[in-house]
Amino acid sequence: NSQTEYPTLEWGGFLQLDTGWIIQDQATVDAVGKVNTETGLRRVRLRASGNVSKATSYVIDLDFAASGHPSFRDVAVIFSDAKFVDHVEAGYFKQPFGMDAESSGRELLFMERQLPFAFAPFRQTGLRGFGTFPDENGTYAFSAYKTPTDSYGVSSGNNGGWAFATRETVLLVNNDDVLVHLGGGYSFGNPANNRVRYAVQPGFFVTDPSDNSATGIPAFVDTGNIPTDNFHLFNLELASQYGPFRTQAEYRWSIVNRPKMAPVNFSGGYFQAGLLLTGESAVYNRKRGIFSGVIPDEEFGDCGFGALELTAGWAIIDLNDLDIQGGRMQTLTFGLNWYLNSFARVIFNMIPVKLDAPTVGRADSLVLSGRLQLEF
Amino acid sequence: NSQTEYPTLEWGGFLQLDTGWIIQDQATVDAVGKVNTETGLRRVRLRASGNVSKATSYVIDLDFAASGHPSFRDVAVIFSDAKFVDHVEAGYFKQPFGMDAESSGRELLFMERQLPFAFAPFRQTGLRGFGTFPDENGTYAFSAYKTPTDSYGVSSGNNGGWAFATRETVLLVNNDDVLVHLGGGYSFGNPANNRVRYAVQPGFFVTDPSDNSATGIPAFVDTGNIPTDNFHLFNLELASQYGPFRTQAEYRWSIVNRPKMAPVNFSGGYFQAGLLLTGESAVYNRKRGIFSGVIPDEEFGDCGFGALELTAGWAIIDLNDLDIQGGRMQTLTFGLNWYLNSFARVIFNMIPVKLDAPTVGRADSLVLSGRLQLEF
Amino acid sequence: NSQTEYPTLEWGGFLQLDTGWIIQDQATVDAVGKVNTETGLRRVRLRASGNVSKATSYVIDLDFAASGHPSFRDVAVIFSDAKFVDHVEAGYFKQPFGMDAESSGRELLFMERQLPFAFAPFRQTGLRGFGTFPDENGTYAFSAYKTPTDSYGVSSGNNGGWAFATRETVLLVNNDDVLVHLGGGYSFGNPANNRVRYAVQPGFFVTDPSDNSATGIPAFVDTGNIPTDNFHLFNLELASQYGPFRTQAEYRWSIVNRPKMAPVNFSGGYFQAGLLLTGESAVYNRKRGIFSGVIPDEEFGDCGFGALELTAGWAIIDLNDLDIQGGRMQTLTFGLNWYLNSFARVIFNMIPVKLDAPTVGRADSLVLSGRLQLEF
Repeated sequence: NSQTEYPTLEWGGFLQLDTGWIIQDQATVDAVGKVNTETGLRRVRLRASGNVSKATSYVIDLDFAASGHPSFRDVAVIFSDAKFVDHVEAGYFKQPFGMDAESSGRELLFMERQLPFAFAPFRQTGLRGFGTFPDENGTYAFSAYKTPTDSYGVSSGNNGGWAFATRETVLLVNNDDVLVHLGGGYSFGNPANNRVRYAVQPGFFVTDPSDNSATGIPAFVDTGNIPTDNFHLFNLELASQYGPFRTQAEYRWSIVNRPKMAPVNFSGGYFQAGLLLTGESAVYNRKRGIFSGVIPDEEFGDCGFGALELTAGWAIIDLNDLDIQGGRMQTLTFGLNWYLNSFARVIFNMIPVKLDAPTVGRADSLVLSGRLQLEF
Repeated sequence: NSQTEYPTLEWGGFLQLDTGWIIQDQATVDAVGKVNTETGLRRVRLRASGNVSKATSYVIDLDFAASGHPSFRDVAVIFSDAKFVDHVEAGYFKQPFGMDAESSGRELLFMERQLPFAFAPFRQTGLRGFGTFPDENGTYAFSAYKTPTDSYGVSSGNNGGWAFATRETVLLVNNDDVLVHLGGGYSFGNPANNRVRYAVQPGFFVTDPSDNSATGIPAFVDTGNIPTDNFHLFNLELASQYGPFRTQAEYRWSIVNRPKMAPVNFSGGYFQAGLLLTGESAVYNRKRGIFSGVIPDEEFGDCGFGALELTAGWAIIDLNDLDIQGGRMQTLTFGLNWYLNSFARVIFNMIPVKLDAPTVGRADSLVLSGRLQLEF
Repeated sequence: NSQTEYPTLEWGGFLQLDTGWIIQDQATVDAVGKVNTETGLRRVRLRASGNVSKATSYVIDLDFAASGHPSFRDVAVIFSDAKFVDHVEAGYFKQPFGMDAESSGRELLFMERQLPFAFAPFRQTGLRGFGTFPDENGTYAFSAYKTPTDSYGVSSGNNGGWAFATRETVLLVNNDDVLVHLGGGYSFGNPANNRVRYAVQPGFFVTDPSDNSATGIPAFVDTGNIPTDNFHLFNLELASQYGPFRTQAEYRWSIVNRPKMAPVNFSGGYFQAGLLLTGESAVYNRKRGIFSGVIPDEEFGDCGFGALELTAGWAIIDLNDLDIQGGRMQTLTFGLNWYLNSFARVIFNMIPVKLDAPTVGRADSLVLSGRLQLEF
């Protein structure tokens, strides 16, 4: 009887304790100021989820370390017996655009998402249909959403505010040895506040960039507010896996149409790879079209050591076009992931940063950072 | 053994995703400004409750969508083996005054409470005795409380700050066919900040009126701060049910005594009705003296549709007296409630609003709004 | 199989509803202003904790009544199969320094910690080793931490910011009749913001002193910000128990080294005692080296009354040295603790306060306060 079986409610979550600092040359200090080191809790997530009927579920995911203390992460209702798609979701959730954006903050190869993440619509309030192609050989998702929405999922204003996003992925190859993932995404939007702003930090920060009290790591590149009629976003994804070796690459660009001014174009991309020295293969989640973590063959403890992954990556973002001179940045990232068991993970990242700042030209810095992550 | 059986803790909650907009004539724009549409999460509630002994229970109910992110809802301790009353409650809770105020935000006939809700003391920190008359033929509640208290239940100040409230209801008729509910309430208070303010929005808003960052729906009528010695509040309730048809009406008035000035009087009332097309009867909660939702005969799904209720109502509030010209407002509300199952509900409301603003006179507008609600 | 057994998650918490007021003479009004009475929720704690493996646990403890709504309390990961110490903890937690600081806010003899608590580093983000000596005949703890950290555990800045703390306790006597506890603590720190500030309220407040919106009880003594190179903190603890009678005393001092100025020294101490009229003995927690509450022989209810404890204490703090004239304060505290059962407790405190204020000299006031506490 559904009256007694439902509703269900389960708790889960994870926490991340980060520390890091940035070694700056004088040009970087001139461009972005003297940067603080930061230590603290990057994410403290508590997530209640459950079902109110066999086909109707909900999720309330809160991040108590984010600037809203808590800010909303996914707060949504999902219907799973829809007619034309596998699932329909309504609420505040990640808009379908980009492989790194779709990955959870606890599933990333490095400590933070790569530089082109600056363009992703990410979490907004909307309505989404999503599911998998036959035999789970790919995924589809399309969404209508309000933009911008605040970190509690509220949008207001009278000047448009509607947008669309879609992401599709397919597995070109998927046999015992090799997996090849191809994906694409598109989003079009007319922001209610008639502006767009792209900015990003170089791979490390503890306090949320949107936290007014943050005294930590500033954005190294930043367009400032751009008066906007509407925007187009495009994305390409390519990923592969060969046993313990995995790669992931994305290229993303944005066209911002401005009132009475020429449109501006920005772009960015990254390539990254990981090699599991202990021989495991990262889990590829076929329902979501992403890599979602590593389960070590042996747990760290009396006799085991866990799993060890060497990682490396390159990323670029270019926020210069016409009169908008937001800067260009490239990063290399070298890292080590130590998966103690399915729930605990330690990350080290070393990130040489090459900034081409509008004011000072070439500027170099080096990020050194580490994380302790626990999922439950 | 109580040491092992207690304490208990259970989680529940609900969420509401709202959208709506207001079509304004020029006079309304002149009176309250151009009003934004709003979309977002109106309420995201998580509630921990349990017992520490057979007769001692607690509740911590938090609204993560409200302006405090979270604000407190009920945070209280309840003793249930008191000598002279059924229950004694201490903490931050809804003061006993008004049928719509006593109803939870998930149990309302429309999306929001009716206009005279502006007068209700609502949640304050205090001490309450409450229970039911013999055979649950009515309810009583009386409370002493601090006022004003902030959204975390804290009151401070040296100038009074004490108030009293009481609500009593009886079932005049209660047989298989017909139920007739009569109720009354009274509150007297001496606010610590020596002021009172009444204001209300026309039946729709997503962000809390007390949220400073709110850019959404303004109050259409508003007394502003009134210097106050003390206030009296009176309330009458009348409700009935005849099978699938239910009605509810309240009339409420306030007397505000001012230092060295004549007292001012404000009042408001509403009448509303609902007809369940699918034949169910709304649940009347005899312990609380309110209607508390609808359980559909058939759930929405393979063969069922859920329950459908047509609703209509009228409300008025008058905030003009002597030198205080806060405005008058009337609303009609037409609505549809679709109860998919005991936990999921969709609401549509259409609200013609007639505002008599002090500055511009007669002004008309129309609210169109909808809600998806999930309880768990 | 650990994959199915872990992770675990359990909820607990407690709430405190406080009320109190302060009767001031004119000198106190001149020194600290007219003080408000306050009523409200002092602490509303929800705590999720569990294990992700046999030896790896976590805790996320949030205080929804504290100024951050919620602020973090303990948010940490604990490893319990470390090689050289019993436990290693990483995250945001109470630094090991002081017996009253180590006691939870629900375990205190009075409503608030005694005046010298002003010096304690308390919760900061760091790394701690801790455990017990053989046969649990004492405890040890040493910690490296970042300072200052905000109420979400984040530290930033480039000017130092590292500190150390340690606390050791031993049971000098521990037989059926008598327990004698001796303890000591030390902390050295170089604050990232190059300043230190000590301030404290006289034994009662509802809103957090750090809450900007607080209009309640001000600090009666306050050094203001002191430019600081680094600080030393020292602490001595002595406690005893003889059946239903327990005593606890601490003496604490601070040396603040200032750039280009002479160092300043501040100190404080307290002595307090409790007598359980109903004959129980307070629980002494040997793993933590503190008294941790009372379990009544009989619960309050049909035939029992619970446990009753008479309490008394004296405390002093001196924040005057050289050019820093923060004031001196002494308090006596007389109290009554009524433990209804293991989870519910009522406290009454009466606190004569003698303030020696820099501006007005001798000033007297009297605090009367009460608390209802429920743990779950």
